[in-house]
Amino acid sequence: MTATSAETATLLVACKDRPGIIAALSDFVFRNGGNILDLDQHAERESGMFFMRLVWDVAGFGMDRAATDAALSDLSARMGLACELSYSTAVPKVAIFATKAPYCLYDLLLSQQLGELHCKIVAVLSNHDELRPVAEHFDVPYHHTPIAKGGKAGAEAAQLALLKSLSVDLVVLARYMQILSPGFVAAVNGQVINIHHSFLPAFIGARPYHQAKERGVKLIGATAHYVTAELDQGPIIEQDVTRVTHREDVEQLVRKGSELERQVLTRAVKLHLERRVLVSGNRTIVFG
Amino acid sequence: MTATSAETATLLVACKDRPGIIAALSDFVFRNGGNILDLDQHAERESGMFFMRLVWDVAGFGMDRAATDAALSDLSARMGLACELSYSTAVPKVAIFATKAPYCLYDLLLSQQLGELHCKIVAVLSNHDELRPVAEHFDVPYHHTPIAKGGKAGAEAAQLALLKSLSVDLVVLARYMQILSPGFVAAVNGQVINIHHSFLPAFIGARPYHQAKERGVKLIGATAHYVTAELDQGPIIEQDVTRVTHREDVEQLVRKGSELERQVLTRAVKLHLERRVLVSGNRTIVFG
Amino acid sequence: MTATSAETATLLVACKDRPGIIAALSDFVFRNGGNILDLDQHAERESGMFFMRLVWDVAGFGMDRAATDAALSDLSARMGLACELSYSTAVPKVAIFATKAPYCLYDLLLSQQLGELHCKIVAVLSNHDELRPVAEHFDVPYHHTPIAKGGKAGAEAAQLALLKSLSVDLVVLARYMQILSPGFVAAVNGQVINIHHSFLPAFIGARPYHQAKERGVKLIGATAHYVTAELDQGPIIEQDVTRVTHREDVEQLVRKGSELERQVLTRAVKLHLERRVLVSGNRTIVFG
Amino acid sequence: MTATSAETATLLVACKDRPGIIAALSDFVFRNGGNILDLDQHAERESGMFFMRLVWDVAGFGMDRAATDAALSDLSARMGLACELSYSTAVPKVAIFATKAPYCLYDLLLSQQLGELHCKIVAVLSNHDELRPVAEHFDVPYHHTPIAKGGKAGAEAAQLALLKSLSVDLVVLARYMQILSPGFVAAVNGQVINIHHSFLPAFIGARPYHQAKERGVKLIGATAHYVTAELDQGPIIEQDVTRVTHREDVEQLVRKGSELERQVLTRAVKLHLERRVLVSGNRTIVFG
Repeated sequence: MTATSAETATLLVACKDRPGIIAALSDFVFRNGGNILDLDQHAERESGMFFMRLVWDVAGFGMDRAATDAALSDLSARMGLACELSYSTAVPKVAIFATKAPYCLYDLLLSQQLGELHCKIVAVLSNHDELRPVAEHFDVPYHHTPIAKGGKAGAEAAQLALLKSLSVDLVVLARYMQILSPGFVAAVNGQVINIHHSFLPAFIGARPYHQAKERGVKLIGATAHYVTAELDQGPIIEQDVTRVTHREDVEQLVRKGSELERQVLTRAVKLHLERRVLVSGNRTIVFG
Repeated sequence: MTATSAETATLLVACKDRPGIIAALSDFVFRNGGNILDLDQHAERESGMFFMRLVWDVAGFGMDRAATDAALSDLSARMGLACELSYSTAVPKVAIFATKAPYCLYDLLLSQQLGELHCKIVAVLSNHDELRPVAEHFDVPYHHTPIAKGGKAGAEAAQLALLKSLSVDLVVLARYMQILSPGFVAAVNGQVINIHHSFLPAFIGARPYHQAKERGVKLIGATAHYVTAELDQGPIIEQDVTRVTHREDVEQLVRKGSELERQVLTRAVKLHLERRVLVSGNRTIVFG
Repeated sequence: MTATSAETATLLVACKDRPGIIAALSDFVFRNGGNILDLDQHAERESGMFFMRLVWDVAGFGMDRAATDAALSDLSARMGLACELSYSTAVPKVAIFATKAPYCLYDLLLSQQLGELHCKIVAVLSNHDELRPVAEHFDVPYHHTPIAKGGKAGAEAAQLALLKSLSVDLVVLARYMQILSPGFVAAVNGQVINIHHSFLPAFIGARPYHQAKERGVKLIGATAHYVTAELDQGPIIEQDVTRVTHREDVEQLVRKGSELERQVLTRAVKLHLERRVLVSGNRTIVFG
Repeated sequence: MTATSAETATLLVACKDRPGIIAALSDFVFRNGGNILDLDQHAERESGMFFMRLVWDVAGFGMDRAATDAALSDLSARMGLACELSYSTAVPKVAIFATKAPYCLYDLLLSQQLGELHCKIVAVLSNHDELRPVAEHFDVPYHHTPIAKGGKAGAEAAQLALLKSLSVDLVVLARYMQILSPGFVAAVNGQVINIHHSFLPAFIGARPYHQAKERGVKLIGATAHYVTAELDQGPIIEQDVTRVTHREDVEQLVRKGSELERQVLTRAVKLHLERRVLVSGNRTIVFG
């Protein structure tokens, strides 16, 4: 999705496989004057599932949005599809949650500013005040939402009210050192991406770099995933690793890992915003 | 393409982009009772080209091969497509050219034996006799075609006659230390894959590891490409790199590189045999 | 360690750090006419440990082996060192254990034949007979040691007797589908390298590729480690990963993983044979 | 080099190899009460060169700096060494040159702020004024040094005067879109690190991503190197690559490449500042 692109529509489809789905959908696009720019489909034999991402050029497409929705809804009902349609002109609103570590926050804000993330970042929320200058440097409102002892429920309620008032579509946890309650995750429809500082499912939980040093692994990793009620168990969007040696102590692993964390998190957010990620059960299908 | 798969048909399409191509082709598959298993399409804005790979399940497909060919030919003419259709039950015949280095040869023969390469290896040709036991161990006929001084043309003629008598579809140069004449390449319709021991276009020509050591690069590479009349300039299919340090001398670079060469060559041959590679101008489109 | 090298001596040292160790050892080499070719040392602040690998050119070294041993033994006692000395002219004897999968076995045998592994492979042992032609092709004796139901102890006793009669220094489990008893591991002094088909500590135990597919990871891995009494918990020597997508089913993950397994196992065996691996607690220090 | 470290001294040595160098230097450290923390040495057979990096703990070292310099100078003269000694308490002064692209600049400034770069960034210089807010956000003085048509010599003279007045030790070209004159490079003793947006020596010169797209490479790269009089030919410090597909147009290659550029440049600067880089001829020896 580039700044100079004309408007496009992106359709994500997940359903039980059956013949004729692509024919029906591509015919629908063609008959209405659209041109398909990118189509990536795969039928999974093991699960019998059908996954597809279809992008078409809206210039010349003769049906308006309401009619398109109705037509797709009708087609989905007839063929048993689960569809998700979005337009490149609709810019998602993102809120970033952080604590004190700045590197993931900088990377997201700068990438957005450079046009690499198809979104508007409408707020940075933090339980501390340290990162205010970073948000302000990028002209993004900063909200300090401290969490008093025993006051987590209240803090989450305030955060949710803020997100609602800003019509936030996606929450990104950029090294946010608090665990969200299942209620919070449900309230934002699971549209929360987190970065975990290990190659999941290795080293679940706290202090993964200490665990990595102790186990003597030769690669450390980072994993970006959707947040679910169960800690570190949500669908994985992206992960990567980097090589380490005995010369690096835990503090150096933490630093090297933080470089990886920001890359993996920004890549995952970018994939999500470009509508390249489909969740199916506890897995994601990522269209490259 | 797995051993246990049912029969599939794979269609590669390259042409000037225009609306309706996917609709027409997917409708064709659907109307005749086929089910699309995998579809990967991309329209390139810069060049205005359309590229697609479409795989469908032949079980239930109601049209025989001759009729399918005729129908696709008709459709191609009407829409200006360049199509290439193949069936998984047609097993390509491969000849491997080698000289004395055994590692690429072993990798190809073993991968084929393990079912990773969708082909039959019908011959190993070499200008030396050292690798005969390797071919024989894998029950592949070995042909010693020595090249006398000034006798290259004659040797190539003999090789071509052999390839023709065996109905060879693809020639793989597995560290074959001779340069093929343009006439030879033309005679096999450019169906020749070579492995070059550098990250092309860096270090074209001879002794790339010596060049790499001298230039002090931090990564060495290997590149598999189709052979064209111009040395080391053909369309690149696959390439990869590996990290090196000052501790490794040229001899060690050669060894480390040879490990990379065999991986990259086998991957490229596998991609070609699974019909994942489309040549467009001097580039390839590789469907992952 | 290259075929053309002159004789070298390699000293591995692990001990509590204290000033003067390098001075004492390098002075010892120098005073006796040796030239240091490679020295890699690191003092670990967190653990207070000293690790070193020192290689010197034996040409010109004026002390014979017995005197060298005595002098080092004396020095070690005075300074509290744990030393391990080996000479490049002493070629370790290796036995490979396999079951039916051939790819790791081929890679080890071919690498040894090409001079990449500083060892002599004296035997291939298997509880099946399928791989006999592979061993014989490389002129390595094959021993079929079937394991009858309930007969594991007897089979291990026979294997140990064979290893002893052959003076085997290292056992490599090249996809050997049996779990060695702690008694067996103790009897070979823990000189056993295994390849596990996951990025440990993720996916310990059986069917790691199925686990990986289910968890939806974006990278699969392989880990080579020394075998200890506890399954999949021994010191890690080498590991690596490769990227996978939703297009690959479990069978394809298994194939892609097997390519990784053989690379990682051969690299680990090579590191061990070049005396680049020091075990410290449950970790390894690998000198690159 | 971590923030919490005690003072250390780092000695880099390059010279013709001869026996006794390590013994002499380690004895020198030991006799004066220092403890060696890290030693990495390699004698290169092909060139007959000796390379070493030696780090010792200054706590307890009984010789002051002037005496140490004199002693090392004496030893170097006797043994023919080229030595370079630095102390961790001496913090190098760095100036960053940029034009309009902000990503490398942010990465350097943030990494320095987070304690990952052992330096003080004393100035950002640019021939444009766009990046002023970035420098000011990190409290680094910004100098706008515009280059009028034909005014390059004058601009360079002004830049050199500024660098001199700030006692700058290292110049980093963070996507600086001007070619430095040989005179400038000489005036700063070659202490200039540049980032080139390709995997050198592939795609030397302008528009490497366009060249890469046209050649159809499967990986794009970035290379950090010392600047010499000859364009893109200086000693390479670090390089890396990332995989690309036909789905990415030139604009997307540029973006993906820019992510790589900042990683590679920051890593190279970090290696330089930790005194891990030795220049030997037109190559670097990098101590990992």
